[in-house]
Amino acid sequence: MNNNLPVGIFDSGVGGLTVVKEVFKQLPHESIIYFGDTARVPYGNKSKKVVQKFSVQILNFLLTQKVKVVVMACNTASAYALDTLRNKTGLPVIDVIEPGAKKSVELTRNNKIGIIGTEGTIRSQAYVKAIRKYSSKVKVFSQPCPLFVPLVEEGWAGSAHKHIVKEIAEKYLKSLKQINVDTLILGCTHYPWLENIIAEVMGKKVKLVSSAYETANFVKDVMKVNNILSNNKQPRHKIFVSDSPQKIIAFGKKYAVKNMNPSNVKNIDIEKY
Amino acid sequence: MNNNLPVGIFDSGVGGLTVVKEVFKQLPHESIIYFGDTARVPYGNKSKKVVQKFSVQILNFLLTQKVKVVVMACNTASAYALDTLRNKTGLPVIDVIEPGAKKSVELTRNNKIGIIGTEGTIRSQAYVKAIRKYSSKVKVFSQPCPLFVPLVEEGWAGSAHKHIVKEIAEKYLKSLKQINVDTLILGCTHYPWLENIIAEVMGKKVKLVSSAYETANFVKDVMKVNNILSNNKQPRHKIFVSDSPQKIIAFGKKYAVKNMNPSNVKNIDIEKY
Repeated sequence: MNNNLPVGIFDSGVGGLTVVKEVFKQLPHESIIYFGDTARVPYGNKSKKVVQKFSVQILNFLLTQKVKVVVMACNTASAYALDTLRNKTGLPVIDVIEPGAKKSVELTRNNKIGIIGTEGTIRSQAYVKAIRKYSSKVKVFSQPCPLFVPLVEEGWAGSAHKHIVKEIAEKYLKSLKQINVDTLILGCTHYPWLENIIAEVMGKKVKLVSSAYETANFVKDVMKVNNILSNNKQPRHKIFVSDSPQKIIAFGKKYAVKNMNPSNVKNIDIEKY
Repeated sequence: MNNNLPVGIFDSGVGGLTVVKEVFKQLPHESIIYFGDTARVPYGNKSKKVVQKFSVQILNFLLTQKVKVVVMACNTASAYALDTLRNKTGLPVIDVIEPGAKKSVELTRNNKIGIIGTEGTIRSQAYVKAIRKYSSKVKVFSQPCPLFVPLVEEGWAGSAHKHIVKEIAEKYLKSLKQINVDTLILGCTHYPWLENIIAEVMGKKVKLVSSAYETANFVKDVMKVNNILSNNKQPRHKIFVSDSPQKIIAFGKKYAVKNMNPSNVKNIDIEKY
């Protein structure tokens, strides 16, 4: 294995850029190939079968790009298609659920963990199953928040519409607050952009776990163990999307994803893979 | 042409059911084939090229079902792909934009017409162009409302979350109210489900034009002219979706779409067409 081969990262759309941002920070010498399925976004309200099919097409594409590791930077894909992808390739396949689940068990003191995510992620029970591997004592409480992704995509994560977003967040998070969870997993790659509002609603005592940060951290560990870390001083990044590049470029700028070069964003027909 | 052949209607998802509902009412003897692209929904924030590609795949599918007329019950597809589809088939192809545009020109007294829709519909300027065919005097004011579709899909069109939906509607509709439009086109098939809230925000003096109602009415006119109306006493309806049938069945029940029989909802792989 050539250690300078790129890390493949994918998401249903632009949300996975939060993971990319963390990988840039924690692994500055790695080249990254990112794929965002912007023609078929979102995955969160779609069925297991469809999400598996889409994920396999994306894996096939990433393999043509000669990646050394595959990161599923999408909670819904992780929840539905992790085993499917692991069975299709010998490369390490890393999901965004396991790292956050593990961290939450380390952090909780009262053994009450909350999870928020898309309908698909919550329905799949993937976080509950992942947490069970680390603790049988912990109680897990889940809440789907389907409007959070469109709110971020609409650019309402900023201050201008904060009170509406906060009111919606209060509705969604009400029961988790009443239950008194002390740790809350942001189980969707879009949610770090709402972290401040969610933190305000939940209060200072509740620790938030970002699946983006934890996943990048885990990617580093896995690459160390597999001895495939790069020390490339000039890593090259490429971004592919299934719809026009416009939106992801705007997002990259808005949310300050370093190294996001518009000339490196290309459109591909993912249905062919 | 056999007049008992079905009417083909499609949408990016479940929104087109508002058109189906109107067709059931206005054309009770017609058999309907509905396709909802639930695996790739929504179209509203996607590019022209991608929406055209998806629309052609759906047309190809509807042709295998031997429909006698094609209704694009999706504003974004109508805005981007009407000519493309008309060039691909000799059947009448009806969009949802023209009928509402025409009606709005008939209704306005102060020649100020407002249009709300998805980003794609608004950006395409399709309503403005359609209105221009009927009047050069009218001034048209557009406002994209990207959160309306997810709010309806999340089931927040009902009374429980009304004040949040109303607050969001007030933000979106503020400038149209200030401009003093006297006619407002609901330029998205999901929006009739928010009609009461939109009416409240806009005030009693503003006339709302439902593209669903006007389209069904126009379908009837076109079929009369082409002499392809059916007088079938037992029409049969079939619904196809690209993701699991669950969601559209729930929607059909919730929003009381008559004749919606779950056993007639089938999944197909639209990418093959």
